Amino acid sequence: MTYARLDQHLRKLEALSHAQAMLGVDEAVMMPDGGGEKRAEAMAGLATIYHDMASSPQVGEWLAAAEAEDLSPEQRTAIREQKRSYTNLTCLSSAFVGKQTEARIRSEQLWRQLRPAGDWTGFLPALANVVALAREEAAMRADVLKLAPYDALIEQFDPGSRSAQITPVFDELKSFLTGFIPTALEAQARRHARHPPRAFTSRFPIERQKALGEVMMKAVGFDFNHGRLDVSHHPFCGGVPTDVRMTTRYDESDFLFALMGVLHETGHGLYEQGLPKAWSHWSVGQARGMAVHESQSLFVEKQIGRNPAFWQWALPVVKQTLGEEALAGWTLDDMMQHVHRVQPGLIRVDADEVTYPMHVILRYELEQELISGRMEARHIPDAWDAKMVAYLGLSTRDNMRNGPMQDVHWPSGAFGYFPSYTLGALLAAQQAATIHRLVPAADDGLRKGDVSLLNDWRRTNIWSKASTLTTPDLVLAATGEPLSARHFIAHVQQRYG
Amino acid sequence: MTYARLDQHLRKLEALSHAQAMLGVDEAVMMPDGGGEKRAEAMAGLATIYHDMASSPQVGEWLAAAEAEDLSPEQRTAIREQKRSYTNLTCLSSAFVGKQTEARIRSEQLWRQLRPAGDWTGFLPALANVVALAREEAAMRADVLKLAPYDALIEQFDPGSRSAQITPVFDELKSFLTGFIPTALEAQARRHARHPPRAFTSRFPIERQKALGEVMMKAVGFDFNHGRLDVSHHPFCGGVPTDVRMTTRYDESDFLFALMGVLHETGHGLYEQGLPKAWSHWSVGQARGMAVHESQSLFVEKQIGRNPAFWQWALPVVKQTLGEEALAGWTLDDMMQHVHRVQPGLIRVDADEVTYPMHVILRYELEQELISGRMEARHIPDAWDAKMVAYLGLSTRDNMRNGPMQDVHWPSGAFGYFPSYTLGALLAAQQAATIHRLVPAADDGLRKGDVSLLNDWRRTNIWSKASTLTTPDLVLAATGEPLSARHFIAHVQQRYG
Repeated sequence: MTYARLDQHLRKLEALSHAQAMLGVDEAVMMPDGGGEKRAEAMAGLATIYHDMASSPQVGEWLAAAEAEDLSPEQRTAIREQKRSYTNLTCLSSAFVGKQTEARIRSEQLWRQLRPAGDWTGFLPALANVVALAREEAAMRADVLKLAPYDALIEQFDPGSRSAQITPVFDELKSFLTGFIPTALEAQARRHARHPPRAFTSRFPIERQKALGEVMMKAVGFDFNHGRLDVSHHPFCGGVPTDVRMTTRYDESDFLFALMGVLHETGHGLYEQGLPKAWSHWSVGQARGMAVHESQSLFVEKQIGRNPAFWQWALPVVKQTLGEEALAGWTLDDMMQHVHRVQPGLIRVDADEVTYPMHVILRYELEQELISGRMEARHIPDAWDAKMVAYLGLSTRDNMRNGPMQDVHWPSGAFGYFPSYTLGALLAAQQAATIHRLVPAADDGLRKGDVSLLNDWRRTNIWSKASTLTTPDLVLAATGEPLSARHFIAHVQQRYG
Repeated sequence: MTYARLDQHLRKLEALSHAQAMLGVDEAVMMPDGGGEKRAEAMAGLATIYHDMASSPQVGEWLAAAEAEDLSPEQRTAIREQKRSYTNLTCLSSAFVGKQTEARIRSEQLWRQLRPAGDWTGFLPALANVVALAREEAAMRADVLKLAPYDALIEQFDPGSRSAQITPVFDELKSFLTGFIPTALEAQARRHARHPPRAFTSRFPIERQKALGEVMMKAVGFDFNHGRLDVSHHPFCGGVPTDVRMTTRYDESDFLFALMGVLHETGHGLYEQGLPKAWSHWSVGQARGMAVHESQSLFVEKQIGRNPAFWQWALPVVKQTLGEEALAGWTLDDMMQHVHRVQPGLIRVDADEVTYPMHVILRYELEQELISGRMEARHIPDAWDAKMVAYLGLSTRDNMRNGPMQDVHWPSGAFGYFPSYTLGALLAAQQAATIHRLVPAADDGLRKGDVSLLNDWRRTNIWSKASTLTTPDLVLAATGEPLSARHFIAHVQQRYG
């Protein structure tokens, strides 16, 4: 049976991607600097072998032949998703991919070098080249996928999501936040006036913070028999579903910095650990896409980790793990002032959950202009500044470092990725609202640090579904309605209004 | 040019073996248990891809075609060694390799299970099967390599070494040690009578032992920009030459246990770090074989790490790193009593440098009988016991666990490997004698903890040579004479007589 041969081939590819994933983790967590050059060679070699094996015409023939075989519904879905992967992998010529990869690497390296000084002029030619190639890519993908060019890029990160559905939702959100951010800031000012915020004065030793991270990971359901927590400069969740490698980094003056990062990455990790193991070598067995992935990380970080109900249980645990003296006299209110801090700022990755969507919407709007050709890379700084002023009241004029040079995405050629962050936040709120409606007992559990009902629902409706449905179909099946901004809006109103 | 195509192909193979090496390290150092099953699948998948790519007939054609091209002498040597690898890789049928791999895995698993109880009877059928397959393998390899069957097995571990050269050397050594072991024990008893041995009474915290290990690794020349030290249950030296991953394990009541292990593995690591980087993807750029590798580990452990001259420098450093109070009042003599302890025992891996060769000679003699068919697996216990009584005065009757079931080598099908350990000890002594003769200043350095002259000689004569010469040719070129027991004999006489 051709299906079985394909299955065998995919197992070999899984071995290669297992190696790539683990070498990536090792590089960030363990590798001494001097190992870097040869590691890069090895990674490039593995990528070539993987690409040759994954994109060979033989695979296309097997997929076509397997479709004609007597398959179970699950197998048929698996073939459908595998064809999607194969099409996306093979629709660009190797010559183009080579040219694009080189341009992206050069641009990203230049960005790393020039970002500290905010040297936009020096960086612009490399970025313009990456934009030009992204337009070419979008056109080629659009042609094969029968999609609009920008949608063809989104499809790489979030299968099934289309700007026609996203734009009205983002517009509604933007319109709401434009009014709500000042409201939230005023409400916060009133709270601070009533109850002045406390500052952390203790030093929080790294070992204790690590212990706290592990206690919290366990509390939200992470399986340490299939994963671990380490340290890296840029925190991530990597590895494979049977061995999820999470990292964080520590600030000894602020334990929330690492803790919230750990909770966020644990959300990613739970999704990976909850994927159906028997399908791990097929596309259908993998996480659906970046929006759904981000919905899981934000569910844990925002819906659980910043939830006052959860902190009723968490605060004593935090005190016990960090040492009573470290937070002596701290009340739930004191802690919530930190956990719920709202502060418009220039940097997306530092943003709170209220202002974060504005950073994403800005990028979403600009990258559509860039890909369509209506805007050129040289116009980014003015457009960026205008939107920052309009959405968050902050100017980035003459501040390229903390303006359009702050993110790695565009320098590395990732256009169509940004919306996933806010789609994830909306979906997390939408999932939380659904659970609240269908499983009201989940809230009681949360107050006792018991997330099992929350996880049961997500395991059944999100994790175990893997890539059997497109993102919009998954959302509809899980929550009973399409993507909507209203649950997120209700969530921030309730928490910050 | 075909040579260039071959070079490219070997770079891809290097990427795969890089991945295999690093996944092996990760498995031992980092991986949670639950990751094991999928990791094993990934390793098997990588091994299949590697084997398919390395043994394809295309490679054989390229090797033949490249030989006819206009090559430099270095390239010609590289082709010669690559052909050796290719021949060794392809001279067994896949059907045979599959059957043998399965038998080895089953036998090794059974051994792990039955060794604790010393259940020889339960284990025997699996071992007998592995022996039968090793005989088949030896016959097939012998046929292709035009070697005697047992030599064809040695060739896998130690290219160029032949039992006709090894046997007289081992016989001389055995004859010497038969008389010398009692002499050394009497000398030790006299030393102990004059100066009763001190026991360690402190607890040596793991962090301090780790710091000590790193200080000593640096002292003997390990490059931490291209390697690191971690913890694993079975200490090893793994990774790749640009990123050498060493491990140890700690006993808080005896710091020498980890320290001597670290020095031993550092010897392996220095060899790897000293290999010629430009040739790392070719066989010719890799370590010559197990005997030479072991000569480097034993050089560092025995010729440096147990050398009283080195300890003149090391003792104060050890005290400083472990904390003065941990070894308060300990003199060089006190320490040397530990470092030079001689004690015949049943277990090879626990043996001191005087009695160790007897364990190896016993195995060397028995495995020749096994491979030739003059002895069957069921006769091992009697033969083992007789030789243990004759060589070390200890019986293993009714003690299978600490007798013929103590090593993983035979259960896993590795016949022809054991001689490497003692060849390594002899070569280390032979190299040390050569350096003593040619670079007398090296000894002065050692007393100050400066091993640079020792390392310079080894870098020039051993490390940088990689696999350009066979083991016997390498020994001859480096030391001016063939393998000999006399330097080792002089060494132990001087140290233990």
